[in-house]
Amino acid sequence: MQELNIIKIGGNILDKPTQLHRFLSDFASLPGARILVHGGGKIASTIGQRLGITPKYVDGRRITDAETLELVTMVYGGLINKQVVAHLQALHCNAMGLTGADANTILASKRTVLEVDYGFAGDVAGNKSINVEVLHGMLALGITPVFAPLTHDGDGSLLNTNADTIASVLATALASRYQVKLTYCFEKRGVLQDATDDDSVIAQIDREKFLELKETGVVSAGMIPKLDNAFAALTQGVRAVQIGDAAEINDIVAGGKAGTLITL
Amino acid sequence: MQELNIIKIGGNILDKPTQLHRFLSDFASLPGARILVHGGGKIASTIGQRLGITPKYVDGRRITDAETLELVTMVYGGLINKQVVAHLQALHCNAMGLTGADANTILASKRTVLEVDYGFAGDVAGNKSINVEVLHGMLALGITPVFAPLTHDGDGSLLNTNADTIASVLATALASRYQVKLTYCFEKRGVLQDATDDDSVIAQIDREKFLELKETGVVSAGMIPKLDNAFAALTQGVRAVQIGDAAEINDIVAGGKAGTLITL
Repeated sequence: MQELNIIKIGGNILDKPTQLHRFLSDFASLPGARILVHGGGKIASTIGQRLGITPKYVDGRRITDAETLELVTMVYGGLINKQVVAHLQALHCNAMGLTGADANTILASKRTVLEVDYGFAGDVAGNKSINVEVLHGMLALGITPVFAPLTHDGDGSLLNTNADTIASVLATALASRYQVKLTYCFEKRGVLQDATDDDSVIAQIDREKFLELKETGVVSAGMIPKLDNAFAALTQGVRAVQIGDAAEINDIVAGGKAGTLITL
Repeated sequence: MQELNIIKIGGNILDKPTQLHRFLSDFASLPGARILVHGGGKIASTIGQRLGITPKYVDGRRITDAETLELVTMVYGGLINKQVVAHLQALHCNAMGLTGADANTILASKRTVLEVDYGFAGDVAGNKSINVEVLHGMLALGITPVFAPLTHDGDGSLLNTNADTIASVLATALASRYQVKLTYCFEKRGVLQDATDDDSVIAQIDREKFLELKETGVVSAGMIPKLDNAFAALTQGVRAVQIGDAAEINDIVAGGKAGTLITL
């Protein structure tokens, strides 16, 4: 099976032109098939402020009301996605911007209202919600899909969807056709043994190590869902999951010393 | 050769939910291959106002400065395009939203500065600027491309590009592979003999008739470039060009009595 790299970048790099250019240059130079998934919450907040849209939170989680959905549709699906695509085209990477609505690539359902109504937030049920045929067709044409963190419900509504989740469900769905390597880029060089020391990257984490890190409190509340997602992806056929700094993407993808490798 | 309908809709329908829904339902029910091209200037102006972006004009033509480019990238490429795509998906039309940057479908060049600097406005040089292979590949997968009026320069910049022009260059480029029918929808039922009488639609206009209509002042300044574009498309192999009301799209496409048919 052919190798496929799925790489997720977050808001911490999207608003820094120099770092973004360096990352996109590295991404464009990767060999073989690849998919990029981007976030963009920070930029959406800035433009939301200019539009007079007040962010709504319940228990620290953002609520996507109707005007926030319009905001993220503009910012994620339009501004960020198309700028990244045009940038990659200049680097001779044949990028194509997508939301889950485009060619019905990712079907989701509006999050069920239990105690909190998250509004237009989308949950992806699983592998079957991914249009593997179309994505395979695009990759076969030499196209690099670039996903904004948006899906749709099949009834005409777009849904705001976590970019980590999108990367993860794409990875598991495409694992039947490709040797998928999933890489989450974030603001640190990997999972750190000591949060105050950027050089204390843990090279490898398996389930046993993960339990130990949780017990000793080394991994933080923010990192636990990322690692949970990573293990879920590995149990569903993804070959490798890595977490690291976008600036070291070439080394991470090449299986070098950079980043943290998650294994079962 | 297979038939391909390329249909352009403008801002006058995009901001009217009931009419838009009716049009998209009709569009989704069209048989065979089709491409939709949308405008959206009215919605961009409204959101621009909320963002405090003042529209700039020279001789009645809008100037796309850097902040206006960001605005139209958000509104055309994000808000309008993705809402239309999600809406079409709900109508079981496998739509995929595109700008010219996506999969390098339309390469343009920044308009040359002569007396006026139009800013980030894109001109498409001709058929060779269209990635026919990718569009053909998508259509073969049963995908319906939905174009926002944006292109790119290949050097990383998006460009604001007239939606009529995009429809026209797509039509002429794809004429080598398909029997292309190009339809421009606008606020009238066709080219009118009497601007004050909506029922005075001229059924057919050929070159001779066009000259006559220009001489007698029947066709207005706004209509002349549309008709010029139509004749240019016909001389480059497009089978039919029609102008009419989005509400009558089924009848227009079926070659019925609605709209104005342009012929050589």
